[in-house]
Amino acid sequence: MRTYLECVPCFLRQALSAARMVTDDPAVHEEVVRETLRLTVTMPFDRSPPWMGQQIHRLLREATGNGDPYAEVKRRSNDLALALYDTLQGHVRGSADLFVTAVSLAIAGNVIDFGCRNRLDSEDVHRAIEDALNDPVNEVACDELRQAVEDAGDILYLADNAGEIVFDRLLLEQLPKDRVTLVVRGGPVINDATWADVKSIGLDSLVAVMDNGDDTPGTIIESCSPAFKARFEQCDLVIAKGQGNYETLGGGDPRVFFLLKVKCPVIARDIGCKVGEMVVRRNTTQAQRVVT
Amino acid sequence: MRTYLECVPCFLRQALSAARMVTDDPAVHEEVVRETLRLTVTMPFDRSPPWMGQQIHRLLREATGNGDPYAEVKRRSNDLALALYDTLQGHVRGSADLFVTAVSLAIAGNVIDFGCRNRLDSEDVHRAIEDALNDPVNEVACDELRQAVEDAGDILYLADNAGEIVFDRLLLEQLPKDRVTLVVRGGPVINDATWADVKSIGLDSLVAVMDNGDDTPGTIIESCSPAFKARFEQCDLVIAKGQGNYETLGGGDPRVFFLLKVKCPVIARDIGCKVGEMVVRRNTTQAQRVVT
Repeated sequence: MRTYLECVPCFLRQALSAARMVTDDPAVHEEVVRETLRLTVTMPFDRSPPWMGQQIHRLLREATGNGDPYAEVKRRSNDLALALYDTLQGHVRGSADLFVTAVSLAIAGNVIDFGCRNRLDSEDVHRAIEDALNDPVNEVACDELRQAVEDAGDILYLADNAGEIVFDRLLLEQLPKDRVTLVVRGGPVINDATWADVKSIGLDSLVAVMDNGDDTPGTIIESCSPAFKARFEQCDLVIAKGQGNYETLGGGDPRVFFLLKVKCPVIARDIGCKVGEMVVRRNTTQAQRVVT
Repeated sequence: MRTYLECVPCFLRQALSAARMVTDDPAVHEEVVRETLRLTVTMPFDRSPPWMGQQIHRLLREATGNGDPYAEVKRRSNDLALALYDTLQGHVRGSADLFVTAVSLAIAGNVIDFGCRNRLDSEDVHRAIEDALNDPVNEVACDELRQAVEDAGDILYLADNAGEIVFDRLLLEQLPKDRVTLVVRGGPVINDATWADVKSIGLDSLVAVMDNGDDTPGTIIESCSPAFKARFEQCDLVIAKGQGNYETLGGGDPRVFFLLKVKCPVIARDIGCKVGEMVVRRNTTQAQRVVT
């Protein structure tokens, strides 16, 4: 997805909000806002918003001298989700359609997103779970995904955030584990899941795991490691979680299914849905249409 | 008031929103956003937000080739307010304290502000009037203003917006008209009142009128005409309407009384009140305190 003009104020709001979250130093707040402005002046708007997210969070890590400012937030998110895991697994096992329930709950977990808002609100998480159980995702889209999983030899599951990956476990348990590789970011960025999160929740004993070699809060293929590029090239199916993956992979490649909770009006407009909706969507060229 | 870091995303949101309001041309929308970014990169944050407002709206007028893009909006605002005038005057005349009611209604009219939002919502106007009648402004502050009016030889009344100036008429009628000069902006900027508005509602037959020679959506003294500077220098009392005048004149000069409806969280924090509040406030050095 291209960057829309509405994304510009949002970059600055996010940059300031992130800077304030990770440090109390007003000089750093100003530096991050100024540098974000400087980057945005010349930013090609055909780049996706996560490209700018990557720049902003690199800035933030440099300015604070903290290589992983969201480490504590990620730990708390994983703990919050782990505490819910048994109950959630019970919901899946007790449901009429395990796959639909697991997909719905995996998407509910996408509410844990420090790119969009700067706090971990357990009420939001509980509300998202309730919504997912009361009003699961579209069955037709889910059946298309189910069929694609059955047909696929090699499946990549692109994770999004810490905490959310505990919810992803529910869906990974419904997939053919010997054919699935879970992919995390190659380095810390916002609260996106990395190797450390996978290990801390023990997901590496369930499925194969790799990182994509890049610190974009999304998946910009050309920035990823050669190993990831090769796997992406050859795989049969990509299950991509979250807005960042939608923004960077949207358009064209029909091997990609997006699973996300829509948290921003620009993405809602791009997808053609409402903010707050849970979306299962096979990639189409449609996703790249330009709206100004 | 200095520019806070929160103002930066707001400049960009306002620039885009204003550009979209005055033209459908996406090239102009992008140009205005890009140029606003360019200006903001090097903007000294000890400048007030209306300084940037001036730059953005100059850009907009140049990019659209339209010297007064809000002309129609101003006309409709004046018409809306004129239609209410007799009723409002009745409220003043029937009230226990004509001055307090007139001050409250003059502030209610400050809700007509296209700098903060991009539509004229008559429901908002009616709600603001109702609020002003049910819960008038602070009487102590009002009494301080009443006393200052009594004591002053030369009074400047700095208007804010079109439409709002019809509400200002209610208060001007309570002031010693031979000692009051109404001041409007020196050129079109957003929906701020200019000579054209004063003439269209006939206010020039009630009090003396001058313009300040500048197109800032506020009052930056050093940018104003020599004539206005001289009058400002020598006057005894300044009644300054709206956020823009608060942002540019706040701090120090105790001859200035601000009358405004607070519409932005940064100003609310600076004043120490809530968004939506009606404020009568004598200028103090307090108003310039720096919050980051």
